[in-house]
Amino acid sequence: MLVRTALVAALVFSTSAIADEGMWTFHDFPSEAVQQKYGVTVDRAWLDRVQRSVTRHESGCTGSFVSPNGLVLTNHHCVMRCLAEISDESSDYIGRGFIARSRAEERRCPTEILSVLLDVEEITPQVLAATQGLRDSEANEARKQTLSRLEADCVERSKEKGAEPLACESVSLYQGGQYFLYKYKRYDDVRMVFAPQHAIAAFGGDPDNFHFPRWSLDFSLLRVYENGAPARTPNYLPWRAEGPQAGELVFVAGHPGRTNRLFTVEQLKFQRDTQFPEYLVRNSELRGRLIQWGKTGEEPARIIQRPLQSLENMLKVYRGLNKALLDDRLMIAKSEREQALREHVLASTELTQTVGSAWDDIANAQERYRQIYGEYLYLESAAGFNSTLFRYARQLVRAAAELGKPNELRLREYADSNLPKLSAAVLAETPVYPEYEKLTLSLSLEKLREHLGPDHPVVRRLLSTESPDALANRLVDGTQLADARVRKSLWDGGAATIEASTDPMIVLARSIDPEARAVRKIYEDEVQARVAAAQERIAKARFAAYGTSTYPDATFTLRLSYGSVQGWHENGRHIEPFTTLERLYERATGNPPFALPQVWLNTRHELDPNTRFNLVSTNDVVGGNSGSPLIDRQGRLVGLVFDGNIHSLSGNYWYDAELNRTVSVHPAIMLLALEKVYGMGDLAREIKGSR
Amino acid sequence: MLVRTALVAALVFSTSAIADEGMWTFHDFPSEAVQQKYGVTVDRAWLDRVQRSVTRHESGCTGSFVSPNGLVLTNHHCVMRCLAEISDESSDYIGRGFIARSRAEERRCPTEILSVLLDVEEITPQVLAATQGLRDSEANEARKQTLSRLEADCVERSKEKGAEPLACESVSLYQGGQYFLYKYKRYDDVRMVFAPQHAIAAFGGDPDNFHFPRWSLDFSLLRVYENGAPARTPNYLPWRAEGPQAGELVFVAGHPGRTNRLFTVEQLKFQRDTQFPEYLVRNSELRGRLIQWGKTGEEPARIIQRPLQSLENMLKVYRGLNKALLDDRLMIAKSEREQALREHVLASTELTQTVGSAWDDIANAQERYRQIYGEYLYLESAAGFNSTLFRYARQLVRAAAELGKPNELRLREYADSNLPKLSAAVLAETPVYPEYEKLTLSLSLEKLREHLGPDHPVVRRLLSTESPDALANRLVDGTQLADARVRKSLWDGGAATIEASTDPMIVLARSIDPEARAVRKIYEDEVQARVAAAQERIAKARFAAYGTSTYPDATFTLRLSYGSVQGWHENGRHIEPFTTLERLYERATGNPPFALPQVWLNTRHELDPNTRFNLVSTNDVVGGNSGSPLIDRQGRLVGLVFDGNIHSLSGNYWYDAELNRTVSVHPAIMLLALEKVYGMGDLAREIKGSR
Repeated sequence: MLVRTALVAALVFSTSAIADEGMWTFHDFPSEAVQQKYGVTVDRAWLDRVQRSVTRHESGCTGSFVSPNGLVLTNHHCVMRCLAEISDESSDYIGRGFIARSRAEERRCPTEILSVLLDVEEITPQVLAATQGLRDSEANEARKQTLSRLEADCVERSKEKGAEPLACESVSLYQGGQYFLYKYKRYDDVRMVFAPQHAIAAFGGDPDNFHFPRWSLDFSLLRVYENGAPARTPNYLPWRAEGPQAGELVFVAGHPGRTNRLFTVEQLKFQRDTQFPEYLVRNSELRGRLIQWGKTGEEPARIIQRPLQSLENMLKVYRGLNKALLDDRLMIAKSEREQALREHVLASTELTQTVGSAWDDIANAQERYRQIYGEYLYLESAAGFNSTLFRYARQLVRAAAELGKPNELRLREYADSNLPKLSAAVLAETPVYPEYEKLTLSLSLEKLREHLGPDHPVVRRLLSTESPDALANRLVDGTQLADARVRKSLWDGGAATIEASTDPMIVLARSIDPEARAVRKIYEDEVQARVAAAQERIAKARFAAYGTSTYPDATFTLRLSYGSVQGWHENGRHIEPFTTLERLYERATGNPPFALPQVWLNTRHELDPNTRFNLVSTNDVVGGNSGSPLIDRQGRLVGLVFDGNIHSLSGNYWYDAELNRTVSVHPAIMLLALEKVYGMGDLAREIKGSR
Repeated sequence: MLVRTALVAALVFSTSAIADEGMWTFHDFPSEAVQQKYGVTVDRAWLDRVQRSVTRHESGCTGSFVSPNGLVLTNHHCVMRCLAEISDESSDYIGRGFIARSRAEERRCPTEILSVLLDVEEITPQVLAATQGLRDSEANEARKQTLSRLEADCVERSKEKGAEPLACESVSLYQGGQYFLYKYKRYDDVRMVFAPQHAIAAFGGDPDNFHFPRWSLDFSLLRVYENGAPARTPNYLPWRAEGPQAGELVFVAGHPGRTNRLFTVEQLKFQRDTQFPEYLVRNSELRGRLIQWGKTGEEPARIIQRPLQSLENMLKVYRGLNKALLDDRLMIAKSEREQALREHVLASTELTQTVGSAWDDIANAQERYRQIYGEYLYLESAAGFNSTLFRYARQLVRAAAELGKPNELRLREYADSNLPKLSAAVLAETPVYPEYEKLTLSLSLEKLREHLGPDHPVVRRLLSTESPDALANRLVDGTQLADARVRKSLWDGGAATIEASTDPMIVLARSIDPEARAVRKIYEDEVQARVAAAQERIAKARFAAYGTSTYPDATFTLRLSYGSVQGWHENGRHIEPFTTLERLYERATGNPPFALPQVWLNTRHELDPNTRFNLVSTNDVVGGNSGSPLIDRQGRLVGLVFDGNIHSLSGNYWYDAELNRTVSVHPAIMLLALEKVYGMGDLAREIKGSR
């Protein structure tokens, strides 16, 4: 599943634009290259219409408008959080699916926010001016302050036009070579319209995830509302129900989350040697804990559905990334490319002066990172306190401290521009499951002790008389943060209320905050700042060596990829680009994750077995592209991206044209499902009428 | 914990003998080097007495005789299997400890076998003659047949002398440069005498494991019997209760399990890239499953104690090995050393002819191994069928097939020389826990599917209509193999009985045997045989380049290491070589794994807080050395090896004199515990009287 992952990463860009490689911005799309290779013209009107048809789901996905009435197509796995949040013991919308028979039955998702990119504005000069001549750590601080200020200004300016304010986010492209403000229209009233049963949406489950051939009906429909009525969305994608032909040119518009294609070798080694092994071991153990707990009853089984799927997906991603980095081919290619650039720099006195010791600076920063990684991960990134309730406590404690400061001096995630998203996350009424919280919190406390050691001051303070289990139980049983009203009053009360609180989770978050902030400060000053400064200098060398006709690394901002529908060769076999419905039935075992919902067994005889189901194309996508529309040259929807094949996981580091493939749901199976399986003829007509 | 681990590995030897490096054989000990460095003479009489005082525990440990009446000192963690096997719901000897107040209360361990090395005999000429001029796979086969035959002959010859037969095992040293028969006296009546509570034996648990400073009372006492009476053991180690001085020369005699110090770079990469990541992810998940299940009740908590401790130990070992291989320092050093040897070979026409393409042959064999690794691991090594009951079924099915063949043509582990150990393992009455079996079997079936894919023929056959849970439940509930009498009748019945059996576990083992044997055949012919042949050739080059004054890699055979009592420097701190009792009490939290048994709290005022507890020395040890005696120049026991520090884990690949340390229990704390805490004055007198 191509949901956005939380990789710690810096912003980088790529030098090579061979094959169908590239996640291009809409403001710098290589229309000429497409014209040359495919004989197709992508003009500004086409780009503008597509841009405004695509939605960014702040939970980490993409979607697209598929009717003028705010109907949004995205993946099923992108709405699992919403389904979980509106489900309870008596209504398991993940297991049973969700069907709104009328608009009145469309259910609001408590925490989902959708954004549509309206405009971008370059701010590179302002940012560079603000950091000119400063030392790395000062420049880093000045850069953050400038970005917070420009974002706030941007929001104010948008209000002046009398309309509702836009959301403004700064974006760094090309390793700090360019800065932009991206201006979004936000939709915070997002309602669930349709979701099939999890069993068919994620048919094949974790074993099939990131594999192809594939049979996953991984789609769902949402609708955005404004002022209590369906939003008017004149920009939307009409459907081409028969889908694309093999070999046909197709585009993917969406929000790839993060790539690290121009990491230096030392940055790659940090991931390979320090970050990934720790992640895989810790989270594999969590997986075991969740699965075993899920076997203790129906309610535990229901509760773990969503977090487990998400965890298993992340584990598969990280295993793929780890495998890529352990592949000598990749590491040697990266080393050679780096060496070539370094030699290019050494050949020019000017470049040598500009770049200085950039690569060594990054290597030293990685070494520093390695030294503080345990504390950074467990205290500041809160891997030692894995719990929704702790997250609330941390956010409340920090908001109380930060909101008393001027906007520019706050931790970036507490800047004014981010407050709407933050307060929505803290204050939304969503279910909290105490037993689940205890499990994740207790395990993470154990890992905290395992990683930092029993004699670390924080570990001794927390666990010198209580076991991880006992402490987790006391915290979860004692806190009142599961109640949204309590969170509201703490949020509104500010610093004095937080300071006076005796809620045990607040007390915990307060007590570790000095250590967490201290290690964050070291990270920002001695790792992040050094890397940012060095990358800027390397970016200059790269521009000088290879020019600027390349794409920036992914940053969870809107991108367009072009490619074509085609399979691939592997182990002497050719993998065809399409699957059909027939084999779905042959593959069903009756047991999860290969069990079909009863309604699919009941209606089998009415369904054309040759209906196309999933398909692959050469588009260059990564996590965050989940839910992206697959689009033909006329701007029609010809598929719904939901995954990559197993080789796509190395796409974080490079694009392998031979093997890397995007996996989509075919439009024919989605319409067939709505019309023949789920009796949602009206919805199908809304989509088809949009033609 | 330094128990022997099950690393898949080939036999190699090391070129360097600097510092206190080396696990030397008793028949080739570098007495001159010790004389030179320490001014101490190690003569044949000293070596012979120590050799016959040391026991090999076939479960993967070492021990030593500490009285003339068969009393054996070893680690607590080495007897946990025995304690688990004699415990039940009403008697938790792991949790409560085991105290035999009289000889009559000494309890027999159902599956433990102890061996004492009496003699060795070189058989290199016979083995080389048998393989002369054969192709790799034929040579591999001929070598195995020859070893089986020589072992059987050896046992027959030992009988001719009228005594009870010896156990004869062939041993390959120096990468096939030398072959020996090792001749053991076996003790199969091994009784539990004393074990402290797990809480004090493993104080600090997994967080402290492989760390120092340390406070673990990791010792226990067994006694070997012959004909129903304590065995006479005139060779034993007297105790030096005050222990060694800092800086003093000390020896470790024991059975290091396996080192890979002369793996080629490609072999190291296979472990780093393929073997270890898979192992860590799979077993971390198992750890999570076990811990979570253990929380469901007292009986599950008791059942998982031993397997969990063993699993956590293995995970820590593998993480350490993985970390070592991800360390550029190590990989670069290995590459350089390999390159130097290759250049040495290329400089000589004769050597070039002898060695041929040996390194490339190993690289190709590793590539082949990579291709079949999933099937080899999950089907033949049975990672897909992780269950004691399945192991019984596999052994019964294969024994039935193999025992009908001539000795030499059998799979090696079914050769006559191995039958006593094998039948003891299959037929012993030990508890089997159905819920535990279901857990491990179900998880491993899931991993089988995850790794081989849902479309693999074996996966489709087993899981096309049943889920892993359902299949595991049906197998465990349906099989009768938990009953030792049933196993006995199947063992005695042979091929016809096995063929007719409808026991579902037997049916399963039978059904996957063709695929498992097929991939084993590929492994043996195309991986093992090629590697063995190439290593033999590289060994010749290495002898030519560096001479023969080196030690062979560890092979779970008797070795002697010399070193001195000393701490180390780390992060600007000096770690002292001794800990004392006082700090144990300060470190106790009241919660596992830092909880002290009540008897230690009750007797605290009677105990000298300055009593030495654990100590470190520079001896070169690895897993399998658990329970090894630490010995002074006069052959007196001055400690009990139970662990290494975290840096010792890289000892699989090299010896780091600066950081690698062996961790032992001090004799003073063991005697104090027996006399003052547990009221075992008689036992203390038996030990001290032995002086």
